[in-house]
Amino acid sequence: MKKAVILISGGLDSTTVLEIAREQGYTLYALSFNYGQRHAVELDCVKKILSKHPVQDHKTVHIDLRGFGGSALTADIEVPKSTVYNSKSSKIPVTYVPARNTIFLSFALGYAETIEAKNIFLGIHSLDYSNYPDCRPEYLNAFEKLANLATALGVNEGGIKIHAPLLYMTKSEIIREGLRLGIDYSITNSCYDPSMDGKACGKCDACHLRMNGFKELHLNDPSPYQK
Amino acid sequence: MKKAVILISGGLDSTTVLEIAREQGYTLYALSFNYGQRHAVELDCVKKILSKHPVQDHKTVHIDLRGFGGSALTADIEVPKSTVYNSKSSKIPVTYVPARNTIFLSFALGYAETIEAKNIFLGIHSLDYSNYPDCRPEYLNAFEKLANLATALGVNEGGIKIHAPLLYMTKSEIIREGLRLGIDYSITNSCYDPSMDGKACGKCDACHLRMNGFKELHLNDPSPYQK
Repeated sequence: MKKAVILISGGLDSTTVLEIAREQGYTLYALSFNYGQRHAVELDCVKKILSKHPVQDHKTVHIDLRGFGGSALTADIEVPKSTVYNSKSSKIPVTYVPARNTIFLSFALGYAETIEAKNIFLGIHSLDYSNYPDCRPEYLNAFEKLANLATALGVNEGGIKIHAPLLYMTKSEIIREGLRLGIDYSITNSCYDPSMDGKACGKCDACHLRMNGFKELHLNDPSPYQK
Repeated sequence: MKKAVILISGGLDSTTVLEIAREQGYTLYALSFNYGQRHAVELDCVKKILSKHPVQDHKTVHIDLRGFGGSALTADIEVPKSTVYNSKSSKIPVTYVPARNTIFLSFALGYAETIEAKNIFLGIHSLDYSNYPDCRPEYLNAFEKLANLATALGVNEGGIKIHAPLLYMTKSEIIREGLRLGIDYSITNSCYDPSMDGKACGKCDACHLRMNGFKELHLNDPSPYQK
């Protein structure tokens, strides 16, 4: 039995990763975070998703990144409403949360070690994302090396793997893969700044990426948008 | 002005590191964790220590590692009361907390990035410690590499350093250094399993290490022990 820990955010990407890992034969252990994010509606999506896409176990870790501030997703900085998503920008956006993926992967590693899972899946991708330093292949490789040095599991047995199956996929390729795997994307949320009732803003970078992905496939995004 | 984030546990080691970093001219930002540890009396010690050894700012992050279990320090596994500390054992002890230092360093990295500090200090040492995989030099080097790939600060400017000044010191060398720096060790707690009123058990590995350290210097440990 191959066990895998899957980081689940309630978004389109991580839901797709969940079904990719299932198709690869892993027993699934989902991990999500309540980190004081603006878009806590994510966590309601996680519940809906896991009721349709069941896993062996699911844990939610409560941590408070707001104490640090420093990001539009966790502090009182306005989420930018760009009308065009600029994939060529080299600037790191204000929605970047300091060390977020490192913190998330560290918890995933702790969870993986306690259940003796050697596989961790996460939905980062490097092609059309917003220049987040912790969404790049070299970052991922460095974390995998660290994981095998950091843990009793890694030191005694080796072979801990960090899987990012979406790493080189565009948003439309991810959506096509998810549809093939039978995912109902209407229950996922990708928006950085959704309304209290869970409707996407349609204006932030994450919304633009998602809408363009569906558009490229000549499909309607089934998730609810404001007005 | 050189800024440094210092991981502070309330123990002998991290208190010594705090004063080492101060002597090296850093402006100090302390970070501690409430992680459901058995020895939460640590956090009272942190307060006492910081009132005698002031810092620029201090943050406590609340996280719940008990949900994962897997360690005598956070789960219902008995803390071993060995009478002899065995530094030759290659077995990883039950007091090892899965991925703990990785989780702690990840938060330190997030904190460091928000205040633009390029230096993180922690009190791990590899010589006479209990075979924790995440207390070894190779682990530390891997984390430093990761830190410079993981963050906007690291990618844009480089030079993030993880400092472990105690790495090659024995307990008695650490104590001698701390006494030179004027530390009052009576307010620090090193015990894995202290009583509710903060008295050390005198029996766990951490107590043995500490008591032997003072003994080698022909000094009495000023901190309170049970009975």
